[in-house]
Amino acid sequence: MFSIRKATPADEEALWGILEPVIRAGETYDFPRDTDRASALHAWLAPVNECFVAHEGERVLGTYVLHANRNGGGAHVANCGYMTAADAQGRGVARALCAHSLDAARAAGFRAMQFNFVVASNHRAVALWHSMGFDTVGRVPEAFHHPVLGYTDALVMYRRL
Amino acid sequence: MFSIRKATPADEEALWGILEPVIRAGETYDFPRDTDRASALHAWLAPVNECFVAHEGERVLGTYVLHANRNGGGAHVANCGYMTAADAQGRGVARALCAHSLDAARAAGFRAMQFNFVVASNHRAVALWHSMGFDTVGRVPEAFHHPVLGYTDALVMYRRL
Repeated sequence: MFSIRKATPADEEALWGILEPVIRAGETYDFPRDTDRASALHAWLAPVNECFVAHEGERVLGTYVLHANRNGGGAHVANCGYMTAADAQGRGVARALCAHSLDAARAAGFRAMQFNFVVASNHRAVALWHSMGFDTVGRVPEAFHHPVLGYTDALVMYRRL
Repeated sequence: MFSIRKATPADEEALWGILEPVIRAGETYDFPRDTDRASALHAWLAPVNECFVAHEGERVLGTYVLHANRNGGGAHVANCGYMTAADAQGRGVARALCAHSLDAARAAGFRAMQFNFVVASNHRAVALWHSMGFDTVGRVPEAFHHPVLGYTDALVMYRRL
């Protein structure tokens, strides 16, 4: 069993261990594939983000960040990013992180959550977000250049909180 | 007649004269309505932006910024923001800026242009972008809190270059 807590600076090494293979693969996020550790952690742990980790004892299995998707008149909609450690796939970590993030966003007063850039070929993520109550509200043609599949669509997904 | 050129630091006062009423109204952009001059110019003239102005002699009539909408695998899609001076409406400034931006984006090697957050109640802008070849590829329910109309949808608009 794993639990979810706020990330601390002591998690940086573990976070980079999760982020690095996802960034190097370049199949699901728009980080440049050569992003270095400092830049990646700077982005993931930006002051505007609330960052959480799923952990089993001292082992970190996954992470998510939560922030407002927009400023001003758009600040009532949350946005999140999620990553699961390669060797923790299939254990429901991403689902648990998403469920946690919906509660955290509600608690922070957000009215809805929006994902701006779900790569359409990331079928597992798309199916998971649908099962978590998200609707596909937009589809941008060929918005992502997948290193294997070439140009693929990106989805905008949304749910109320 | 007006023409379009790159913005320079000498344009800051004129740019603020255009941005301030748009930001204070809070009806079309997600800047917080109390954004100060320094923060607004910092955002509009961010190093990642190419900034242009439409001008008639020394008078600045409008402005736009151009940048990549995403990084990494999404860096082939451009994004722009446009503003026209209140007393220069109805002269085709926004249309000319958009046409210029499409050429500038093509010249920079972008394959498409995407607008992430067109407030649906901004009918003039929506009609203009449609007439410039943009399709509505997404609609996010109540993503914008309009100071007069309340919660309104936001559109994702897109065209190839």
